[in-house]
Amino acid sequence: MKKLPWGMIGGGTGAFIGGAHRVAARITNQYQLMGGVFDVDFERAKEFARDEGIPLNRVYPNIDEFIEGELALPAEERIQVVSIVTPNFLHYEHARKLMENDFHVICEKPVTITSAEAIDLQEISLRKERVFCITHTYTGYPMVREMKRRIEAGAIGELQRVEAHYLQGWINPIIHGGGGKMATWRLDPKVSGISSCMADIGVHAFNLIEYTTGLEVKQVLGVLNKLTPDNPLDLDGNVLLKFSENMTGVIRASQIATGEENNLQINIYGSLGGFHWEQENPNELKMLHEGASYEIIKPGYEFLSDFARESHVLPPGHPEGIYESFGNLYKGAAMAIKNEPTVPGQFPGIEDGVRGMRFIESVVQSDKEGSSWIAL
Amino acid sequence: MKKLPWGMIGGGTGAFIGGAHRVAARITNQYQLMGGVFDVDFERAKEFARDEGIPLNRVYPNIDEFIEGELALPAEERIQVVSIVTPNFLHYEHARKLMENDFHVICEKPVTITSAEAIDLQEISLRKERVFCITHTYTGYPMVREMKRRIEAGAIGELQRVEAHYLQGWINPIIHGGGGKMATWRLDPKVSGISSCMADIGVHAFNLIEYTTGLEVKQVLGVLNKLTPDNPLDLDGNVLLKFSENMTGVIRASQIATGEENNLQINIYGSLGGFHWEQENPNELKMLHEGASYEIIKPGYEFLSDFARESHVLPPGHPEGIYESFGNLYKGAAMAIKNEPTVPGQFPGIEDGVRGMRFIESVVQSDKEGSSWIAL
Amino acid sequence: MKKLPWGMIGGGTGAFIGGAHRVAARITNQYQLMGGVFDVDFERAKEFARDEGIPLNRVYPNIDEFIEGELALPAEERIQVVSIVTPNFLHYEHARKLMENDFHVICEKPVTITSAEAIDLQEISLRKERVFCITHTYTGYPMVREMKRRIEAGAIGELQRVEAHYLQGWINPIIHGGGGKMATWRLDPKVSGISSCMADIGVHAFNLIEYTTGLEVKQVLGVLNKLTPDNPLDLDGNVLLKFSENMTGVIRASQIATGEENNLQINIYGSLGGFHWEQENPNELKMLHEGASYEIIKPGYEFLSDFARESHVLPPGHPEGIYESFGNLYKGAAMAIKNEPTVPGQFPGIEDGVRGMRFIESVVQSDKEGSSWIAL
Amino acid sequence: MKKLPWGMIGGGTGAFIGGAHRVAARITNQYQLMGGVFDVDFERAKEFARDEGIPLNRVYPNIDEFIEGELALPAEERIQVVSIVTPNFLHYEHARKLMENDFHVICEKPVTITSAEAIDLQEISLRKERVFCITHTYTGYPMVREMKRRIEAGAIGELQRVEAHYLQGWINPIIHGGGGKMATWRLDPKVSGISSCMADIGVHAFNLIEYTTGLEVKQVLGVLNKLTPDNPLDLDGNVLLKFSENMTGVIRASQIATGEENNLQINIYGSLGGFHWEQENPNELKMLHEGASYEIIKPGYEFLSDFARESHVLPPGHPEGIYESFGNLYKGAAMAIKNEPTVPGQFPGIEDGVRGMRFIESVVQSDKEGSSWIAL
Repeated sequence: MKKLPWGMIGGGTGAFIGGAHRVAARITNQYQLMGGVFDVDFERAKEFARDEGIPLNRVYPNIDEFIEGELALPAEERIQVVSIVTPNFLHYEHARKLMENDFHVICEKPVTITSAEAIDLQEISLRKERVFCITHTYTGYPMVREMKRRIEAGAIGELQRVEAHYLQGWINPIIHGGGGKMATWRLDPKVSGISSCMADIGVHAFNLIEYTTGLEVKQVLGVLNKLTPDNPLDLDGNVLLKFSENMTGVIRASQIATGEENNLQINIYGSLGGFHWEQENPNELKMLHEGASYEIIKPGYEFLSDFARESHVLPPGHPEGIYESFGNLYKGAAMAIKNEPTVPGQFPGIEDGVRGMRFIESVVQSDKEGSSWIAL
Repeated sequence: MKKLPWGMIGGGTGAFIGGAHRVAARITNQYQLMGGVFDVDFERAKEFARDEGIPLNRVYPNIDEFIEGELALPAEERIQVVSIVTPNFLHYEHARKLMENDFHVICEKPVTITSAEAIDLQEISLRKERVFCITHTYTGYPMVREMKRRIEAGAIGELQRVEAHYLQGWINPIIHGGGGKMATWRLDPKVSGISSCMADIGVHAFNLIEYTTGLEVKQVLGVLNKLTPDNPLDLDGNVLLKFSENMTGVIRASQIATGEENNLQINIYGSLGGFHWEQENPNELKMLHEGASYEIIKPGYEFLSDFARESHVLPPGHPEGIYESFGNLYKGAAMAIKNEPTVPGQFPGIEDGVRGMRFIESVVQSDKEGSSWIAL
Repeated sequence: MKKLPWGMIGGGTGAFIGGAHRVAARITNQYQLMGGVFDVDFERAKEFARDEGIPLNRVYPNIDEFIEGELALPAEERIQVVSIVTPNFLHYEHARKLMENDFHVICEKPVTITSAEAIDLQEISLRKERVFCITHTYTGYPMVREMKRRIEAGAIGELQRVEAHYLQGWINPIIHGGGGKMATWRLDPKVSGISSCMADIGVHAFNLIEYTTGLEVKQVLGVLNKLTPDNPLDLDGNVLLKFSENMTGVIRASQIATGEENNLQINIYGSLGGFHWEQENPNELKMLHEGASYEIIKPGYEFLSDFARESHVLPPGHPEGIYESFGNLYKGAAMAIKNEPTVPGQFPGIEDGVRGMRFIESVVQSDKEGSSWIAL
Repeated sequence: MKKLPWGMIGGGTGAFIGGAHRVAARITNQYQLMGGVFDVDFERAKEFARDEGIPLNRVYPNIDEFIEGELALPAEERIQVVSIVTPNFLHYEHARKLMENDFHVICEKPVTITSAEAIDLQEISLRKERVFCITHTYTGYPMVREMKRRIEAGAIGELQRVEAHYLQGWINPIIHGGGGKMATWRLDPKVSGISSCMADIGVHAFNLIEYTTGLEVKQVLGVLNKLTPDNPLDLDGNVLLKFSENMTGVIRASQIATGEENNLQINIYGSLGGFHWEQENPNELKMLHEGASYEIIKPGYEFLSDFARESHVLPPGHPEGIYESFGNLYKGAAMAIKNEPTVPGQFPGIEDGVRGMRFIESVVQSDKEGSSWIAL
């Protein structure tokens, strides 16, 4: 089993999310980090490479030299797939250039700053036949995948109601502290784009809803809260969803839900039953049944779907966590890059990125218009 | 300690909620059921009275004869306080006549069919100086009361976000079953009024928010779901709330959240911390703190507020339930009737009933107008 | 429905457990407190009676005058059933005299100080055909009753293992505090008998095991901990149980498990599945299945056993607590007193009291002998 | 950062635990798998090596050729540390030969078949100055480490009581099924040694108690259950522990607790508070306090001990699992091998292996003697 030659843009020393990508990739045992543009500070980038045992001639100061350098290498040595973990506003340029030069891409969310950019990436991805994986990490959890498969199989009947929330409190001390709003780049529109809370976490809740239900949200209506008059971006918001005349939903998201850590949850109700799942306790899937006891489904069992069983191989009672969930996306992307057969849902693609950008833009627009319904 | 002579309108044999009122009253040891209009079927009413050991001359066929009969008795024998547990559309007439004739009233929610009626009852209650207790049962739980007191004392700082949900699934089999929508009076507008889900349970979530935060909702925006085209009333809905420019909230309610039982929860977040409480696990109050571990507060401890300690007298670890919560409202009403000193929040009054009716009407109006903001 | 004329020995003002008995009795609506020996201080007893609305001629200074006074009344006015809530060492004398004079008895546990006394009470109860209910309160919880019925029906196959614990921390501050061990009568052998922890709470765990499994413990082996050299009674202990060559169990109990409230739990495993139940969260019964998801069973459903349904009449999601559990024992005792048909397990009887005393004595003996096996 | 050249004995294709070791090692990014004796079937071993990208000249048919082959390599290429994941009865020979030839060892538990063997390994480890890490995986969880540090710091005062259980159900279908007891090598004494349940999982509970409390168990008393007459090994058992006159404990373990997965829990109580931790929900540590609310401690916070913070680097609310816990042991072993400073408890060593073997032998002896106390 030859490992995929792999590169990173961003993610050097001190970058929390870059480290998580590397652990995820190592768990799969299918990626070999060969080079990249690890840091805006080239000296720091080289130091990082030394620590990782990466030859310094594969460390590049910017994306253009990365592409030039790698293309100059023989095809069998060349990096094939690149993970983009730079600030949001750089994703588009990096992803575009990489795909145009035949690299596959794994990209953090939100995938771009505008939906037009995301649509552009989608076009390139199709034209160049490049794999584009967007790291909606939570879709890699085995119990999320089991939920998706059971809903597809009609286990809870026709869907009637869905709701998800993503509550964090980490911006609370920042917004109230002396550092003010600029203490974090997430609140700088030049770096983050038009939204903080919705772009950073609301979009995960949105993706989780469309991923697990297999349904498309048709309209959204939102109200956003910036908490202080001088803060330009939303820190909190609630979004109503319409799927059809008789099915609605709601997304709640906050970065100022003080004391909350990374509280992503989803409830889905159909004519026969329902599901409840929590990211902070990811190995329990609660399944509700009309007129009967509810059950708690856990990973590692024979009776689970193939998809869930492949996503957690340890026996029952051995908890896996977010790195393994993340690893499941990397594994799916590797399979697609190698043209191995994959199943639907193995990893979120650029089409999910486009939907996510439309969601973010529409919610911001709805809020600006005093909470009107916006077609998605 | 003389018990209060007590009557009931409705609530005879087979009435689930009537039985709950009687258990609540007996727990307090402060009420003696002396008579009432227990059933529309007078023979059944008398049979109920025999079972309860109530003299048959205190069983009346209707509200007017009840009032006439009781007023004819010497004041010291006469029923002083009456619980109304009839279908919603009858509450107004019964409450009005009782208060005009000097009876105190304990009434089920929703208190009336229109807010105008509720305002009328409020006027009578003030003019006649009658106690009017509306049974928002969940305000009687000791941990709800502790949460209220701590918020008042600033324990979680300035409030930033609030959300509550009330999810049930009991109408799911009815709406999908052969019996159709008329299998339950809750879906008959003549009996229930303009709303099913919001009037029956959404209003509890609304009341719980205003009760615990001490804040008034200023505007609401709602979307309702009737599930089938021939069903006239909402079975499900989501409501956005505005308290101020920088504080919002959301209420979610459903009677078709299949498999849910009586799932009422509330989350409140402030600048210093937050609270989370669940009705189905009422003896645990989760308190979140900025930058620290969260704690689980339980009843029975010395360190709790007076209000919580008086609401649960057993030592820690002895779970109390909904009857005891209900009993706490009856206890509060008894204290008010006897002119004993009470503390704010001891029982919800007609002013809560007026707020609740305004909430229901506004949400229905908002939904009709395509989800507009309605001032409350 | 005529209420049972009811008396109490002990349980006056300030007695926590006496108050709980009265709430339990009122919940059933089948008892009318008519008199008793409420307090060793006769003046306080009369004051309590005044508060409760009990005529002073039914307040007695001691058990003998109680019996004499009541027997002098016409049979239809006379108290029929008496609850004994005095300190442990008085139970025997009171219960004996009451039954010999034809009163039915409801008695706190441990039922006596020695097993010989308990056997004597059993003989009297049979000879005089008196109902004797011992308040192992936890057997009244609906989910405990459902567990018992399912085990009887073979739902988890042949039993393989059982374990229960009862952990409290309330003696921790007493044993470490300045007040010393005598700050509580529970640590005075003259009042409590030969054991504190095992007699007070270990015996509940033992009873719960025999009640739910329907099996008899054959041998016990125990080790007890008194924590300090000058404390005469056990505060903590662990007990191994043998049911047969191939089925064992264990009971753990402590009054110095600092921070624990009233943590009684039971796990039962058979060849097909298992059960887990916790007193502090009494409305959830976890049922484990070989090779399948586990389920959470809750009260209020049609699919439950008759026994569980009669023990919780509210719809699902309306939590009941310890008063209602207690009330279920009082209801069962009332049915037996009225010669109404009852089902096995409706209330623990004197035979459970005898078993409990044998358990306590055997564990203490085993510990004294350096942890030997003692036949029960 | 040069990776440690690493080998494995056992753990080839299809070996669940071998795969877990490799994920753990990869997570740390400090080990490079260079060779080993992956399989008793040499062809399968080579196929495994091909899949892993390991040169075939580093694949050996047995331990002796492994040692000979590696020693023939230049020191800087040579494997330095070897993980032993063979059946129990082979651990001793493999570990002994490896250390005598200067390899560091990471070994599965139980470390040997007899305590004499373990003591022998301890002597060699000291004499040869070799790192010996025994994979009591659960000691790698961040919340276990936080608990250990807080107990060391006196956070719950002087210890009074400790209890742990490890409940699984996986042997239940085997022992009841047609395959009989030989369906699993765990029930073959030639392969497993004198115990199944205690050697496989009871010893984890024992290690967790000594690891977290820092105390040594002085005496044990056990009762074991083999369930069927023809089964030679224990499947279930309960063990009483004595630490001192006034501190006792208990270990419960079962492989026939039907429906249980990998349910390892620990409760520790001291004079000031207590701890509760569950392996299946590893990111929550419950801390009990005398007379105050209990708190739930989670990973990722600044306020945690250095040890816990280094063991979980993601922000709060990002759950880690058993691979990461395992990885923490591998990380600790790597630090020790590289002579980097480590802190006590970074990984369990051969001294823990000796204690564990003494525990297993003593419990089996106690059971044979009819449950006598055995000094440890």
